[in-house]
Amino acid sequence: MNKIILDLIEQGKYAEARKEIVSINVVDTAQLFEEMDKQKILILFRILPKDIASGVFSHMSNELQRYVVESITDKEIQNILDELFLDDTIDFLEEMPANIVKKVLKNTNETTRKLINQFLNYPDDSAGSLMTIEYVDLRKEMTVKEALERIRETGVDKEIINTCYVIDSNRILEGIISLRKLILSDSTTVLKDIMDTGVISIKTHDDQEDVASLFKKYDYLVMPVVDNEHRLVGIVTIDDVLDVIDQEATEDLQKMAAMQPSEKEYLKTSVLVLAKHRIPWLLILMISATFTGFIIKKYESALQSAMVLASFIPMLMDTGGNAGSQSSALIIRGLALGDMKPHDILKVFWKELRVSAIVGIILSTVNFLRIYFIEKVDILVSVTVCSTLFAIVVLAKVVGGVLPIIAKKIKLDPAIMAGPLITTIVDTVALLMYFTAATWLLGI
Amino acid sequence: MNKIILDLIEQGKYAEARKEIVSINVVDTAQLFEEMDKQKILILFRILPKDIASGVFSHMSNELQRYVVESITDKEIQNILDELFLDDTIDFLEEMPANIVKKVLKNTNETTRKLINQFLNYPDDSAGSLMTIEYVDLRKEMTVKEALERIRETGVDKEIINTCYVIDSNRILEGIISLRKLILSDSTTVLKDIMDTGVISIKTHDDQEDVASLFKKYDYLVMPVVDNEHRLVGIVTIDDVLDVIDQEATEDLQKMAAMQPSEKEYLKTSVLVLAKHRIPWLLILMISATFTGFIIKKYESALQSAMVLASFIPMLMDTGGNAGSQSSALIIRGLALGDMKPHDILKVFWKELRVSAIVGIILSTVNFLRIYFIEKVDILVSVTVCSTLFAIVVLAKVVGGVLPIIAKKIKLDPAIMAGPLITTIVDTVALLMYFTAATWLLGI
Repeated sequence: MNKIILDLIEQGKYAEARKEIVSINVVDTAQLFEEMDKQKILILFRILPKDIASGVFSHMSNELQRYVVESITDKEIQNILDELFLDDTIDFLEEMPANIVKKVLKNTNETTRKLINQFLNYPDDSAGSLMTIEYVDLRKEMTVKEALERIRETGVDKEIINTCYVIDSNRILEGIISLRKLILSDSTTVLKDIMDTGVISIKTHDDQEDVASLFKKYDYLVMPVVDNEHRLVGIVTIDDVLDVIDQEATEDLQKMAAMQPSEKEYLKTSVLVLAKHRIPWLLILMISATFTGFIIKKYESALQSAMVLASFIPMLMDTGGNAGSQSSALIIRGLALGDMKPHDILKVFWKELRVSAIVGIILSTVNFLRIYFIEKVDILVSVTVCSTLFAIVVLAKVVGGVLPIIAKKIKLDPAIMAGPLITTIVDTVALLMYFTAATWLLGI
Repeated sequence: MNKIILDLIEQGKYAEARKEIVSINVVDTAQLFEEMDKQKILILFRILPKDIASGVFSHMSNELQRYVVESITDKEIQNILDELFLDDTIDFLEEMPANIVKKVLKNTNETTRKLINQFLNYPDDSAGSLMTIEYVDLRKEMTVKEALERIRETGVDKEIINTCYVIDSNRILEGIISLRKLILSDSTTVLKDIMDTGVISIKTHDDQEDVASLFKKYDYLVMPVVDNEHRLVGIVTIDDVLDVIDQEATEDLQKMAAMQPSEKEYLKTSVLVLAKHRIPWLLILMISATFTGFIIKKYESALQSAMVLASFIPMLMDTGGNAGSQSSALIIRGLALGDMKPHDILKVFWKELRVSAIVGIILSTVNFLRIYFIEKVDILVSVTVCSTLFAIVVLAKVVGGVLPIIAKKIKLDPAIMAGPLITTIVDTVALLMYFTAATWLLGI
């Protein structure tokens, strides 16, 4: 299909191309535009129906949006803005430079301009920055018939018409009612008698992560947003929550991999910015690794009299690191998803203790068989290595399990605490145990 | 509120408790039930209205569901099943032991029993296992008035009544139409003229991860599921997709942390199962770490003549590991979210090369200043350590960036390839470079 449309445009058959484009999804059209000549995009953009043009516009890349807005007339900008949902307008304006924002704001009426400015001011990660205003508000004294009439009059542009909000004269949210319930009810019924009053709402300044949790908990498709006086100011729809969930999982992953989190796509981020996000933690970790250097230096003479000990250091440290990150990954994710709470710390401690004992015994046994029987390493050295291995696995797993919870308890970010701090603790203690065991068992 | 209800129940005031419970969300009631005496749950369960009872039931824990089904009569089971959405019934049955499944199936009519068996047979991660059947189907010859009448007649139980599906006499999906469009259209209009024919649909055997991508791409709230003959068999709603997104992110994270992925919550997983998920990769990694041991052994005499070299091994290996996991985390996540495709491999290679050069230079410089000027390490040793550090950072970042993409290209899981293989490669090559540089620069 895309091939056909591109060919038609290539041959200048715009009217036919228009017919095809109208029948496909605006998301696909927007993708098609990214592959086209810029001049041709403008021609197509102008001959598309208004509602489709703005649908396509809201799904184009920022670069293309900017190009289009710079190239079209004020009247055409107004046409697009008329059809755009407010949240899409805000998303678009947030990414544009000042001169474009000015050009766009110039073409809106005063009410919309005020709204846009208010929305641009909500904190980046708040419910306010996710919400939109295309909802239907009703009054509890209305009959079902009156309500349906009001929806017919005002509903064409509303994003989620399926849930309607009942407010009083001060815009205080009193209840909700679904379009489905309206359709299925007798037309003379008064809304007061059928509306649902147990409404769960969001505050404008709630964190978007908490908003996502509410959607997951209650299986809602849309939730109302109220201000501090419980006045209805907007709605959040679940499709915007999908993005939040992806974004939060990505951020946690980045923090666990010792980076400053960033919302921007990798391929669209500059080399310098990528480097800047990675250097701080690498520096901190590199410098904290000096502890391990000091310990090795301290035991230099012991090491010199049994050089074979050195060859097991990487294996011990790697296994400790891996064992620890297994536990911390599970716990950090569990905390993020709400599967466990900080007060579960003792349960986690006890569970990790038992899991690590099993894992430690198996790893040590396999390792002993390998180095004593196959590599023919001295028995005392083998025992030193394997007993240290066991202790490291237990230590790494318990620290990896408990530390993220402690971080959460003292209001630090569990994901940041995880990788960095755990590695340093486990590495340092592991080497100390290794050399202590060696001095003791080998008498060096 | 919860406190009040619990108190009322404590005092045996069930009628009053019922009144309160009816006004709160079923999800909250289900949570409340988890904290109560089992006998009291049964009493409450029996006095709640049918629709609320089954709503609460679908949000209870598996243990509680099992207890309730084991304790109530066949008639009562039928009442719950009547009100449950099919997808909730399936979710519940999938977690129950055979005797409970049998008891439940006994209480359904033949049509439902057949449907349940068909649904239980869809592969675990397929669209079929996500879908439900509570949709409204219409015919294209119907007028808007006829359509609305059909919705009123059949719509009470439909999960997402807001999108209706137009099918032909063979159930082939021909178009969709929203309830909103029906309400806003003239009552004599024929559906054929207003339905949307550019329908994007899912196949029953599509992977749930692909389903999630479609929802994200098109911002849909619900999508139709068709069989191989393009016959409509069900719908997938976005709230079930939320769970898929969380689940996929968790699985990727578990694989990156060198574990076998599991859907079950940590606190609900037994110690033995947890250990079983963790041991295989730890064993593989432990044994692959022997490469590093061999290298150290090979250079034992070089190491013995300059013992200070040993003290930098942990720092070099840690930094390499951290640098590599930064890159692989970004790329694996980018591939999972669709931000980059396998054909972007050269872009990633070139980007990582430049980022790692910047990061490598800064880390080496800081390290040189520290060990040469502060720790007063010999100049040649300092140069050896810092030039190796630079090479390791570049190597780790390039391998970390490119390897997940190669994995994807040859249809392996990028997340599994990441941690394990990268660590082994980087560790081994890093040590080789370190000792080569040392033999060359220090002449040992």
